[in-house]
Amino acid sequence: MFYAIIPAGGSGTRLWPLSRADNPKFLHALTGTPESLLQATVARLAPLAPPDRTYVVTGATHVAGVARQLPDIPERNFLVEPSPKDSCAAIALAAAVLHERDPDAVVGSFAADQLIRDVDGFRQDVRRAIEGAEAGYLVTVGLKPSGPDTAFGYLKCGDQLPGLPVYRVAEFTEKPDAQTAEAFVRSGRYLWNASMFVFRARVLLAELARQQPAMHAAITEIAAAWHTELRDQVLARVWPTLPRIAIDYAVMEGAAAAGNVVTVPGSFDWIDVGDFDALGELLAPTESGGAVTVNQVQGSAVLTHDSAGLVVVPAGGRLVATLGITNAVIVDTPDVVFVCARDRVQDIKHLVEQMRASDLAAYL
Amino acid sequence: MFYAIIPAGGSGTRLWPLSRADNPKFLHALTGTPESLLQATVARLAPLAPPDRTYVVTGATHVAGVARQLPDIPERNFLVEPSPKDSCAAIALAAAVLHERDPDAVVGSFAADQLIRDVDGFRQDVRRAIEGAEAGYLVTVGLKPSGPDTAFGYLKCGDQLPGLPVYRVAEFTEKPDAQTAEAFVRSGRYLWNASMFVFRARVLLAELARQQPAMHAAITEIAAAWHTELRDQVLARVWPTLPRIAIDYAVMEGAAAAGNVVTVPGSFDWIDVGDFDALGELLAPTESGGAVTVNQVQGSAVLTHDSAGLVVVPAGGRLVATLGITNAVIVDTPDVVFVCARDRVQDIKHLVEQMRASDLAAYL
Repeated sequence: MFYAIIPAGGSGTRLWPLSRADNPKFLHALTGTPESLLQATVARLAPLAPPDRTYVVTGATHVAGVARQLPDIPERNFLVEPSPKDSCAAIALAAAVLHERDPDAVVGSFAADQLIRDVDGFRQDVRRAIEGAEAGYLVTVGLKPSGPDTAFGYLKCGDQLPGLPVYRVAEFTEKPDAQTAEAFVRSGRYLWNASMFVFRARVLLAELARQQPAMHAAITEIAAAWHTELRDQVLARVWPTLPRIAIDYAVMEGAAAAGNVVTVPGSFDWIDVGDFDALGELLAPTESGGAVTVNQVQGSAVLTHDSAGLVVVPAGGRLVATLGITNAVIVDTPDVVFVCARDRVQDIKHLVEQMRASDLAAYL
Repeated sequence: MFYAIIPAGGSGTRLWPLSRADNPKFLHALTGTPESLLQATVARLAPLAPPDRTYVVTGATHVAGVARQLPDIPERNFLVEPSPKDSCAAIALAAAVLHERDPDAVVGSFAADQLIRDVDGFRQDVRRAIEGAEAGYLVTVGLKPSGPDTAFGYLKCGDQLPGLPVYRVAEFTEKPDAQTAEAFVRSGRYLWNASMFVFRARVLLAELARQQPAMHAAITEIAAAWHTELRDQVLARVWPTLPRIAIDYAVMEGAAAAGNVVTVPGSFDWIDVGDFDALGELLAPTESGGAVTVNQVQGSAVLTHDSAGLVVVPAGGRLVATLGITNAVIVDTPDVVFVCARDRVQDIKHLVEQMRASDLAAYL
């Protein structure tokens, strides 16, 4: 039986002011579809994992929004973290809870905020990953790097395993420095890790026990109490002791070194909608007239005159009008209007720092 | 006894989307003061004409907003035009109604949307104009041209009248063509007409009777019925027959040719806040950090990063944030966000035309 885990945490700031601390990126429909990124993620997995076998790990701030967007998922499948502890705690908690439910569970963890257009290709690759997981491996999905990006994990690929549609991963390197990333890409032997992991729950827990024994003990204690009246009490005592660490560092690098990680070379396109400029690139071919319009809400309209290269996000229900404006991002939300040069979207972190240090932090 | 008339009509589009058909420029506080342009106009005149002697001529669409902004002015002093007929009908109606009230009335007409910072100088000049009006002239206020602008009327100045602080106007030319305007300015003998007229009500009515006899008859009939139960009936019948014409063309040019117009050379600064770029120029010295902030409302804030030369109008109660944006106008209102290159503000008319021809006309 295959189960899907969707860690839905972290609001990020690169899509501010659309993505907010209380209304994060994965709850938005960035591509003009009626579905949010989270809903699209669940729908993409549904033929493999129906609602009853789909689990979402999220924070107390977001669970209401998440639950409303996913009315078919049973309430017991929303795992609420008392505080954010990064991906290792989130995925390990879900794996441990699932292991209690089904000792043979095969589990896949998928980010809530990715955009994948070739849904059939994606499902085919996940089915291959499930075969690898059933054989006892921690399976990653690898994607051909488009450049030496330092924001990703890199998988050094080896030979195909006999009789299985997966390849050995000789080395897993999370977020290398620029020089290393360049050497990796130049060698042609590395794939990006797509942040999708498929494994038997008990295999992940065994790796956790081997590499992070304290964390394994804590997670196991919480999972054992999860469906009992002791849950809140155990969570309150144990959860704060967990380290804040990504699964890539905590488990995957060490598991790869031990020969326990394999990969499915992904055949689908995969887009990390990291910022509004990228979103504009993505949507441009389908739009006309000086602006790419994103995430339009009821009542909003966009009117441009002598304008070009715009990414307009009319998410505030207002008319957005421009005159003589080129290469800019305009985001309208109910309480913030943001106007940004399109080649400066990466610098939004400076604006965010300025806000954190001021009385404008409530807008984050 | 001196009376002030304030024609408050015409919304204009050069300050769209702040200035709107139902919320025109004169109702806004463009300079960050608590007073709107209209309120400032009334306050500027108050020592010369207290509320009981201040009359506002406005349209049915605007009278509620006007009346609320001017709580001290008696209700009977709001003269509501059934339809816009330009300045001649508005000023002549007020003059005729005042002539019924006070046959010796000296009246001054002042635009509702001008910005004047030297209030004492302004009042001194109006007092001089009143002296000229008491001597039987139609008195204008003349201002030194700053360039060959074709949007103004030009006064050709002659000699000072013996014993009076006013000068003969040999010629009044409303909105000359560019070549003529240039010749006027080069000669050094012309002043701009500041759209302020001071006169005895009966003198204006006599000039109207001489130059526009049909209009005089119509206005006189309306004024006679104004404070009777027949007002609505007479207005409904007669008002639609009035020509739509500015007082400059209908009366002033002909009166000047007949030697009946004089001028007071104005000593005050006078600013026609025509567009957001001009407003930015006006306010720049008093502001810091990449943006001039205009018309800020409760709850709004402006945050800029690596931005310069901005005019920001946060009139929607939202945070307006910019990153890497230079020389732009950003206007935020409750239902429209407008982003415009600062050197393109004059082209707003094209955007407006586009809106008139579309289903966006309701935003005008």
